[in-house]
Amino acid sequence: MPANTFGEIFRVTTFGESHGGAVGAVVDGCPPGLALSTADLQPDLDRRRPGQSEITTQRREEDVIHILSGVFEGQTTGTPILLVAHNRDARPEDYEHLKDVYRPSHADFTYEAKYGVRDWRGGGRSSARETLARVAAGAIARKLLRERLGIEIVAYVEAVGGVRAAVDTATVSAGDVEANMMRCPDAQVAAEMIALVKRLRAEGDSCGGVVGCVVRGVPVGLGEPVFDKLPALLGHALLSINAVKGFEIGSGFAGSAMRGSDHNDAFEMGADGLPRPVTNRAGGSLGGISSGADLTFRVAFKPTATIAHAQQTVTRDGEATTLAAAGRHDPCVVPRAVPIVEAMTALVLVDLHLRQAGRQA
Amino acid sequence: MPANTFGEIFRVTTFGESHGGAVGAVVDGCPPGLALSTADLQPDLDRRRPGQSEITTQRREEDVIHILSGVFEGQTTGTPILLVAHNRDARPEDYEHLKDVYRPSHADFTYEAKYGVRDWRGGGRSSARETLARVAAGAIARKLLRERLGIEIVAYVEAVGGVRAAVDTATVSAGDVEANMMRCPDAQVAAEMIALVKRLRAEGDSCGGVVGCVVRGVPVGLGEPVFDKLPALLGHALLSINAVKGFEIGSGFAGSAMRGSDHNDAFEMGADGLPRPVTNRAGGSLGGISSGADLTFRVAFKPTATIAHAQQTVTRDGEATTLAAAGRHDPCVVPRAVPIVEAMTALVLVDLHLRQAGRQA
Amino acid sequence: MPANTFGEIFRVTTFGESHGGAVGAVVDGCPPGLALSTADLQPDLDRRRPGQSEITTQRREEDVIHILSGVFEGQTTGTPILLVAHNRDARPEDYEHLKDVYRPSHADFTYEAKYGVRDWRGGGRSSARETLARVAAGAIARKLLRERLGIEIVAYVEAVGGVRAAVDTATVSAGDVEANMMRCPDAQVAAEMIALVKRLRAEGDSCGGVVGCVVRGVPVGLGEPVFDKLPALLGHALLSINAVKGFEIGSGFAGSAMRGSDHNDAFEMGADGLPRPVTNRAGGSLGGISSGADLTFRVAFKPTATIAHAQQTVTRDGEATTLAAAGRHDPCVVPRAVPIVEAMTALVLVDLHLRQAGRQA
Amino acid sequence: MPANTFGEIFRVTTFGESHGGAVGAVVDGCPPGLALSTADLQPDLDRRRPGQSEITTQRREEDVIHILSGVFEGQTTGTPILLVAHNRDARPEDYEHLKDVYRPSHADFTYEAKYGVRDWRGGGRSSARETLARVAAGAIARKLLRERLGIEIVAYVEAVGGVRAAVDTATVSAGDVEANMMRCPDAQVAAEMIALVKRLRAEGDSCGGVVGCVVRGVPVGLGEPVFDKLPALLGHALLSINAVKGFEIGSGFAGSAMRGSDHNDAFEMGADGLPRPVTNRAGGSLGGISSGADLTFRVAFKPTATIAHAQQTVTRDGEATTLAAAGRHDPCVVPRAVPIVEAMTALVLVDLHLRQAGRQA
Repeated sequence: MPANTFGEIFRVTTFGESHGGAVGAVVDGCPPGLALSTADLQPDLDRRRPGQSEITTQRREEDVIHILSGVFEGQTTGTPILLVAHNRDARPEDYEHLKDVYRPSHADFTYEAKYGVRDWRGGGRSSARETLARVAAGAIARKLLRERLGIEIVAYVEAVGGVRAAVDTATVSAGDVEANMMRCPDAQVAAEMIALVKRLRAEGDSCGGVVGCVVRGVPVGLGEPVFDKLPALLGHALLSINAVKGFEIGSGFAGSAMRGSDHNDAFEMGADGLPRPVTNRAGGSLGGISSGADLTFRVAFKPTATIAHAQQTVTRDGEATTLAAAGRHDPCVVPRAVPIVEAMTALVLVDLHLRQAGRQA
Repeated sequence: MPANTFGEIFRVTTFGESHGGAVGAVVDGCPPGLALSTADLQPDLDRRRPGQSEITTQRREEDVIHILSGVFEGQTTGTPILLVAHNRDARPEDYEHLKDVYRPSHADFTYEAKYGVRDWRGGGRSSARETLARVAAGAIARKLLRERLGIEIVAYVEAVGGVRAAVDTATVSAGDVEANMMRCPDAQVAAEMIALVKRLRAEGDSCGGVVGCVVRGVPVGLGEPVFDKLPALLGHALLSINAVKGFEIGSGFAGSAMRGSDHNDAFEMGADGLPRPVTNRAGGSLGGISSGADLTFRVAFKPTATIAHAQQTVTRDGEATTLAAAGRHDPCVVPRAVPIVEAMTALVLVDLHLRQAGRQA
Repeated sequence: MPANTFGEIFRVTTFGESHGGAVGAVVDGCPPGLALSTADLQPDLDRRRPGQSEITTQRREEDVIHILSGVFEGQTTGTPILLVAHNRDARPEDYEHLKDVYRPSHADFTYEAKYGVRDWRGGGRSSARETLARVAAGAIARKLLRERLGIEIVAYVEAVGGVRAAVDTATVSAGDVEANMMRCPDAQVAAEMIALVKRLRAEGDSCGGVVGCVVRGVPVGLGEPVFDKLPALLGHALLSINAVKGFEIGSGFAGSAMRGSDHNDAFEMGADGLPRPVTNRAGGSLGGISSGADLTFRVAFKPTATIAHAQQTVTRDGEATTLAAAGRHDPCVVPRAVPIVEAMTALVLVDLHLRQAGRQA
Repeated sequence: MPANTFGEIFRVTTFGESHGGAVGAVVDGCPPGLALSTADLQPDLDRRRPGQSEITTQRREEDVIHILSGVFEGQTTGTPILLVAHNRDARPEDYEHLKDVYRPSHADFTYEAKYGVRDWRGGGRSSARETLARVAAGAIARKLLRERLGIEIVAYVEAVGGVRAAVDTATVSAGDVEANMMRCPDAQVAAEMIALVKRLRAEGDSCGGVVGCVVRGVPVGLGEPVFDKLPALLGHALLSINAVKGFEIGSGFAGSAMRGSDHNDAFEMGADGLPRPVTNRAGGSLGGISSGADLTFRVAFKPTATIAHAQQTVTRDGEATTLAAAGRHDPCVVPRAVPIVEAMTALVLVDLHLRQAGRQA
C-alpha cells in the first residue's frame, strides 16, 4: 500500500493539510449500487468534529463534506468517489511562531528531515485533521458492511490517563457509547474520566487513553494469510492513526502470560450449524482468518503532545529553546478517536470482504 | 500488499506448506551488487530451526537453503532471488487422525471455511514452518541494512508465561541474547524461564511470551505517512507472524496511562549536529517517521495451541469430540520467534529505506 | 495498478464524470521541493481544452484547475496534491434521450453490464473529459522530468483519416506542432488534414488518426523487466486513453517484416563516453530498458464514435432502434489527443525514474 | 505492478536466468478447488520448448515442470503455487566470449547500465527462457478460464518476414494452428514461411513476424477503467514479451484511417438476449470493457537479434569491435511465441475476471 492509500480493492486515498484548502479522500473500488448521500457520512464526522464538547479542542469546524463524483441518482456507480471538506476555521497565523522550532513529541522535525520542506501551519499533513477523511470514507465502508453483511462495529473509551472501565464486549452498544461526551459506556467511570481531563486541561497538561472495539456479525473467512492476516491488517490500520502506540487483539499482552490449557478456545457447534469457539480469547481470528466470533481489540493512544507546560527543545538552526503551547488542542484525544477507530476497522473489513469475494469466482 | 507478498520495493513472496515439497521465497527488488551466498542466510535459519535445543520441538529439519536465481558471481544482480528449502522430516501420516477434526485455537476450521479445502498435514500453509522463508529473506535485508546503513537489530525474550526480565534496550547485544537457549539476555531470569518451560512440557502444557526488540542506527526519515507510518508497518509485519496477539512501540499501552508532561520527549542537539530526543518514550518514531533514536517495541505471543491435555472440539461433520495432541511441537515459541521478529523488522526497514530513496530523485 | 490509479511511486488517481460536479486527480508520491503552481498546468490543459479551434467540439469549458493540497509556499511538500476542475458547461439534459439506449461503439452498454448502473450524462466516467485529470497530473511529471533530468517530450499528429505526414523525429519541435490547429508539424499536410476534418464534420461523419511521439534526453536504465518493461508501460498508459486501438515502438509492425541484418542497431561510442545505437529501429528501448537513444512510438486512434449518421442499435429493453447524434463532439480527436499522449508518457517516465532511484540505495 | 510480478489478484511472480539453476514462477491468488497437475502445464510448455522443430533453436531442454506447493490431493488450495523447471542444457561457457562485449539489439548494455552487474550467460534474466515461467503459469489461468467460464484462446502466426496469411478469426481453431510447425493456420502460406525461415537460417540471418489472437466466450464486463482497460492490460502483457514492438486490437492502426460511419459497430440483440455488436471492428472491447464479442488482436515481433552476420559494436571498455553469433538461437521467434501470447492473454483475463467478481460482493 502506498503512503496515502489504504486498501487493495476498496481503496481510500486521503489528501489535505490542517490549514490548507481542503481535506478529503478519493474512494476507489466501492461496489456500485450502494445508496449514498452526505447524510450517511455526516453523523460519524460530527462525532469526530473538533469543538463538539467541553473536553475537546475549541477549533470551530463544521466539517461539512461534499461528494463530487462517483454517485449518480443517489447511488454509487463503481467509479471513484471524491469526498471534500473545505477548511473554514484555519488560522495559519497562530502557527507562525512555530515556523522555526521543533515541537517536542510532534512530527515537525521528522517531516522536515524526510521531505526537506515542512508545512508548519498546525502540523500540516501530520495533523489529526487528516482523520476527517478516514472517517468520511469509513462511513461508506460501514454502511456497506451493515447493509450487505449485517456487521456492527462499536468502539468505546476503555481507559483515560489510568482510569479504566470494565466493558462487556458482548453487550456494549453504540447507544451506551454516545450516552456521554467521553464515549465510555460506564457512566460512572466516564464521569471520573471527564473530571480528570478537565483537571488536566486546567493544569495545561494532557493524558492518553485506550480505545476498545468489538465487531459483531463478521462472517467466517475474512483475512488473507500469510501477510494480510486479519490482526495484521487491523494493526496496520489502527497503528496508522495519529498518537497510537499499541494494538492488541483478544487476550493480547495479558494472554502472553497464560498457559495453553487456560488460553485455548474449545469448539462447539453453534445454532447456525457452524463450529464456534466457546470462549473467545483469540478475539475472533484463528490463523489470521475470522472465525465468526466477535472481533475484540484494543488501541493505545499516547498523551496529546501539545501542552501548556514549558518544554525544552531546539530550533531549526540548532539552538536550544523553550516552548509552551497556547493554541487550540484536545487535552485527551480518545473521545474523538472512537469514530476514527471504527472507520479504520470498517475499511479493513470491507476490503477483506471484497478480497474474499474475488477469490471465489 | 497481496496475501503472500510483503513489501513495496523490496518484495518478498513466500510459498510452501509444512509437509509439502518445499518452503521458500522469491525476493524481488533487492538492490544489485550485494555480496550474497547461503552462508549469509544459514545462521539466522539455524536460530529458527526446530530441534535446536531441549525447549523446542523435536522435529528434525536441517533447513538447508538454496539460492536458485538472482545471484551471479557471488553478488545480487537486481533480479528475483529464489530461496528454497526442501522439507526432509515431513511425516504427513502423523496428521492423518486430524484430517476430519478441527484443533482448538488452530487455523484448521477457518482455512477450510475460507478456501473450501484444507491441507491437514501439520497445518499446511498455516504452520509456522512458513516463517523459515521470512527468516531467509530477512537475512538478506538485514545484511543490506548492516552493510550499507550500519543498522543493527537485536530482538530478545522479555517474558515467558508471566516470568519477566528487565532488559536495558540501550545496551543489550546479540551476544547476550545468544548466551542461552531461551534467548533472554538476563541469565538468571532465563534459567527461571527454562525451568518453567520444561515443567510445562512435562505437564503437556504450553505458555506464551513477549519478544522485545531494539534497532540501532536507523537514519532519520524512514516511514511513509499517512498509512505506512513506521509503527503501522512494523505492527503489520509483526502481527502477521503466527501466534502474535499484540504489538506496542515505545511506551505503548503503559504510556496511555501517562500525562503529556511526563511522556513528551524533549529535544536537544546531538553530537552529529542533528536534533535528538533526550528521552525515547516515542520508541524512535515521531509522526510515523524515524527520529534517529533507537526503535524499541514489543510483540506478544499467545501460548502454543498444541497441548497434550484433552480438549473439547468438533469434527468436520459437526460431531463433538475430544482431542489431545501427541505430535512434535514447541511448548513455548518465543526462543525461536526471536530471529523471526528480527527478520520481519529488517524487511520493514529495508523497504522503507528504498521507498525513501525513490522519493528523493 | 488499481482501476483509477496509475503508477507505482508517482501515483495518479483520477476521479470525476463528464457532467458531474468536478473532474481531477490526486497525485501521490511527487518528490518534494518542486516549484509548482497552476500556471505550470494550465498551458497543457488549454491544449486539451474543448472549443479551442474550429475542428474540435464546441463544448465551452475553461478547464480552470485548482491545487487544494500538497503545495506550500510555492513548492511541493511530498504529500498528496489534489487537482480539481469544476464542470461549468455541463448540460446533462442534452443526454436525457440517451438514457435508455446504447450508442454504437460507445461504452454505454458495457458500463451498464459491468456496474449495473450507468451515468448517462455525456458518457459519465467513460467520457474523454477524464483525460483532463491526466493532463494536469502529467504536467507535474513533465515539469519534474524537464527540470531535473532534461527530458523533452514532443507528440504530434502523424496521420488523420488516411492522410499521412512524414515527420522527422530527430528534429520535430513543440513549436512545429503548435504552429497549426491540427498539431501536425508538416504545415502542408496539416492543411489537407484540416480540410478533411471540416468536410467530415459537414457530412456528420468523423475519422481516426495516428499520434506520434518522440522523447529526448531519456537517461539509460529506465524500464523494469520483466513485466514493467518500458514498451509495456508505455503501451499500458497509451492504450488506456479513450479511443486508442494500437501502439507501436520503434520499427513496430513494419519492423516485423524485416530481417535481422537490416533491423539490428549497431553500437558505437557516443560523445558522452557511453555506447549508443547508430540507428534506432528499437525506438530507444533494449530489453525493455531505455538505451539513451530517443524514444519513438506511435498511437492509433479510432474514428470518433459519435456521428450524425443514423445508426442501428438497441434500447435497454432490447428493442431495435435508430440513433443519430446531435450533441457537441470532436469530428477527429487527434489534435486534442497530443497533450494527452505527452501527459501519459510523462507519467510513465517519472515513475520509472523514481523506481530506478529506489533500486540504487 | 512490480517488476517481476503480473496481475492484481491472480499474481504471477517469475524468477530465473537462462543459464542459472532454474526458472519458474510463484502463482499467488489462484482460486482454490481447481484440479491441477503438471500434466495440465506440460502441453503448452512443449509448444514453447526449444528444439521442437527444424525452425527453432537447437538448445535441448525438456522443460519439465515441478509443482512444489499450493496443490494438495490433486487440487489447488488457494495458497501460493511454486512452479520450477531446472535448467539442464545450460552451457555458460558458450557465452564467455560475450562477457565483455555488448551484442547489438540485445539487452547486454542496458542491463549492465541499469543494474551495474550483468549475468552474461545467454542473456541471463533478459533471455526469452523466462517466458517458460509465463507459459506454465498461463496454463493454470487458461484451465480455469476454460473450465469455469468456457473461454477459448487461440493464437496463431499471421505473418513472417513479410509473408502474410489471411486468417478468419471466426473459425480458426487450435487444431489448425498445430497442424504445422510454423503454427500458421493457412497450410500453404505456412509452407512459404517455413521455406523463408530455412533460407534465412542458412544465410545466418533472421526475421520478425506477427502473431494474431482470438478469444471466444469472454463474458461482458471484463476490464477496469480508466487505467486498466482491457486493451491497456493486454497491451501491457504482450508488450512485456521479449522482442515485441507493437500491439493492436480490433481494427488497430488500419482503423485509424477509417471514417466513423464505416468503423462503428451497430448493435443488435443476440440469441442470448444480450445486445451484441453486429460487426467487430472494436475487437471485443468498448470503453475498455469486454462487450461479449470475440477479442481480436495482433502482436508484432521484431527479427531475432542474434545473427551470424558480422556486426559493429563496442566492448565494455568502449573499444569498437565486430561480432558474429555462433550460438544456438531461433531464426524467427513467432512459432514459439504463439503459446506465450496465449499465456499472457490468459493471465490478463483471469485477473480481470477475479477483479470483477471482487467488485460485485
